Amino acid sequence: MTESRLVPERKSPLASRQHVPLRFLKSSLVVDSELTPNGEIAGWLEEERRSAGLSLERVPLDQLENWAFTENGRIAHRSGRFFAIQGIEVSTDWGEVPNWDQPIIDQPEVGFLGLIAREFGGVLHFLMQAKVEPGNLNAVQISPTLQATKSNYSRAHGGNAPRYLEYFIDARPDEILLDQLQSEQGARFLAKRNRNIIIEPEGELALTPSFRWLTLGQIKHLLRQPNLINMDTRTVISGISYGEFDDRAEYYFDLFARHFSSSNLPAISLLRSFLHAGDSLHSMEEILSWVTHLRSRYELHITRKPLSELRQWRIERDCIRHETNRFFKVIGTRIELHGREVRSWCQPLIESAQEGLLAFIIKPINGVYHFLVQAKLEPGNFDIIEFAPTVQCLTGNFRDNEPGQRPPYLDYVLSAAPEQRLVDTMQSEEGGRFFQEQNRNLLVLADDEFPLATSENYRWMTLNQIKQFIRFNNYLNIQARSLISAISFA
Amino acid sequence: MTESRLVPERKSPLASRQHVPLRFLKSSLVVDSELTPNGEIAGWLEEERRSAGLSLERVPLDQLENWAFTENGRIAHRSGRFFAIQGIEVSTDWGEVPNWDQPIIDQPEVGFLGLIAREFGGVLHFLMQAKVEPGNLNAVQISPTLQATKSNYSRAHGGNAPRYLEYFIDARPDEILLDQLQSEQGARFLAKRNRNIIIEPEGELALTPSFRWLTLGQIKHLLRQPNLINMDTRTVISGISYGEFDDRAEYYFDLFARHFSSSNLPAISLLRSFLHAGDSLHSMEEILSWVTHLRSRYELHITRKPLSELRQWRIERDCIRHETNRFFKVIGTRIELHGREVRSWCQPLIESAQEGLLAFIIKPINGVYHFLVQAKLEPGNFDIIEFAPTVQCLTGNFRDNEPGQRPPYLDYVLSAAPEQRLVDTMQSEEGGRFFQEQNRNLLVLADDEFPLATSENYRWMTLNQIKQFIRFNNYLNIQARSLISAISFA
Repeated sequence: MTESRLVPERKSPLASRQHVPLRFLKSSLVVDSELTPNGEIAGWLEEERRSAGLSLERVPLDQLENWAFTENGRIAHRSGRFFAIQGIEVSTDWGEVPNWDQPIIDQPEVGFLGLIAREFGGVLHFLMQAKVEPGNLNAVQISPTLQATKSNYSRAHGGNAPRYLEYFIDARPDEILLDQLQSEQGARFLAKRNRNIIIEPEGELALTPSFRWLTLGQIKHLLRQPNLINMDTRTVISGISYGEFDDRAEYYFDLFARHFSSSNLPAISLLRSFLHAGDSLHSMEEILSWVTHLRSRYELHITRKPLSELRQWRIERDCIRHETNRFFKVIGTRIELHGREVRSWCQPLIESAQEGLLAFIIKPINGVYHFLVQAKLEPGNFDIIEFAPTVQCLTGNFRDNEPGQRPPYLDYVLSAAPEQRLVDTMQSEEGGRFFQEQNRNLLVLADDEFPLATSENYRWMTLNQIKQFIRFNNYLNIQARSLISAISFA
Repeated sequence: MTESRLVPERKSPLASRQHVPLRFLKSSLVVDSELTPNGEIAGWLEEERRSAGLSLERVPLDQLENWAFTENGRIAHRSGRFFAIQGIEVSTDWGEVPNWDQPIIDQPEVGFLGLIAREFGGVLHFLMQAKVEPGNLNAVQISPTLQATKSNYSRAHGGNAPRYLEYFIDARPDEILLDQLQSEQGARFLAKRNRNIIIEPEGELALTPSFRWLTLGQIKHLLRQPNLINMDTRTVISGISYGEFDDRAEYYFDLFARHFSSSNLPAISLLRSFLHAGDSLHSMEEILSWVTHLRSRYELHITRKPLSELRQWRIERDCIRHETNRFFKVIGTRIELHGREVRSWCQPLIESAQEGLLAFIIKPINGVYHFLVQAKLEPGNFDIIEFAPTVQCLTGNFRDNEPGQRPPYLDYVLSAAPEQRLVDTMQSEEGGRFFQEQNRNLLVLADDEFPLATSENYRWMTLNQIKQFIRFNNYLNIQARSLISAISFA
């Protein structure tokens, strides 16, 4: 790649702010790129994997260098930075279990998950990093331009600052294409949020090894393969809006429909569900009233307590685990990089008891695709209830359970025919905190007999409505956003 | 009033859900009503005041019956119900003061603030209560149909349930006209929120003494007088939306503009700012980015501590006060009702050190009225930053300060000419918690020279944009909402 490519071209006529959604849409339709041809991606990742030279070994919790049990019963880094493992007691009047204890990740600072965007050949590309994280399956996954916690960037000076950080710190309002505060896993993190941001900085931009430009269509294309696009990338792109129907959108939509015509009817319907503001089963006011009711009706109280006092949890030499071995373990790891960079450190990671399953059921209502959204209370939720996929569970939940006790809609999702599964891939949780954890991501098109009626905790919403909620904080949980990010139109 | 009036009429052609905003608008234009003529309102309130027979005396904190200092240093009711006075330490990197202690009201349950609406003569009326509250100026103020905390209604049985509660508990989705979770004062309450709800129940409705039907226009008309409409009413009506410009709105708007023509240009401009979605100085995405930046950038940490350990606060026999006598006091009161109902009880109340001042500055930009919104961090905020009025301060803040240290825009607001003051009245805080506290509420139309440029913590927004934020939780603070509620078009 030559330097000349890195100086911004004159912007296309669509470059002004009001055309941002259409520029995102256009990029989502471009599934290959001269800058980073699809044929080169496997090699790029393999090269990074090789040059990172990651190895991970499990070590006992009491041998984690620089980590220790604190006086108040947490596992924390001696510097006070990074994160801590905290014990909590959860009390709620939601669901079947009114009270339980668990460990949870406590990391109260807001981090950056940032993408740099730039237009090449009239198409927005995103600067992606092939990034090694200790818990990653495949060691390296495709990550945003910037993943940085506040302690990362506020204490780092000069050469220690994360790459490209300054572009985000200094971004002018007119360079910002997306900027949202979004939650992390509410079952694993205590009210953790990240700033999800996409910027399009002016001026020169030096390309660093391990970074490559991809179109949105390429990212979505790669999401059909397992465990290539990391969770941080997925959450940022899940917030992208493609606009609303107006004359110009209609023009694009026609172009697009002609291009794909009958070959990809679900993709056209998904796009229509994003763009079309009318014909939803429920008005936005009705959905807001539903959330208001749930957030008023149900209570969630979190009390911190020492890990050693958590009921039903055992602190053992190698891990902290539930006495039934369900849910997850806190494990100790030593990580070594012995490639381009030589470095080693210890840290706790969370190891899930099983793989999980995340699924949205989709049904055409009034001619528009609607998603069956679940209201879900999780202990780390910032605001009690968030919108979750139709099904969100660990596979252990249903393998062990009698049919009558299985999560609602699970059996339907598991028995869906291949042609109903618009998306069906394994995707990873964040490798900086989770040990090789993956979830099956499913979008299932319901058959005609699927009932319109739902129970109190579920509502049908169009993608247009879901997008309106994503714009504001703490409505869509990260699992729902992961599924939304996988929707492609090409 | 005859019973026949209480059976709903056949609904007007505008009665379907999509016409809700226009029905609110129509009601806001009707400033008198046959059901409760304006001439009868003073008599209604006086009658209630007389028949309540409220008296309040101050008592030492250690003589509050049923209240006591708890082991962990709070003042709480022996039953555990109602509310508690809690000590907190606040740490933040926002503003000039990084760390302070204060007492705060701890009442973690979500209450109902509810209005029942019904159409009479084609116009929506709201069922208002003349309600006595211990801290009220004038003893009685005009309150929503229902003010109930969760412990109020979940432990009350049969005859003890608040009047009309069952209509709210049982409301069907299609009977709900507005339903929002909104915050209380962030400087005085620890993350307290209320469910603000307006319902239009079908079927008969028995009218209870002390309740009357008022149009929205009447309520807004009464807001021009001091301390008649209580804070709970103001917060509920602040969330009302009048819709967006479309063919039908344009029709109403023309009607309205012809009716008031040149006589009330600011009212027409205010309505236009509500209805008109375009021509705003900043896009919604830019404003969301600004909030995201602030909520990411700044930290707010609250630690509970015993009242006795609060630095700079003195627990005395008669009150808890700051050693400088600034801010507020916690006082003890005994309340007696010796009218229609005979009852007495003790409770703490908060007594402000001074009156406050709340003001929005308004400026026409691109031909549309914009409000100068302040981002403000307060310790009890649910999400760090909320949108506040341009000026929000206690008068002591500026009487004592040198000009250079006075809150931004204060001098401009105080020196505004009478014709610039679209609204200028004293309004009360909630009389169940605050002792005769009132704030000056000001809407000030800026002169042509007023600068468009603002500092980092301020943004110009149209009313249409403000309304979009009010729909979602925890964006507009209660002081901003109080000012919005005072906007009238008639």
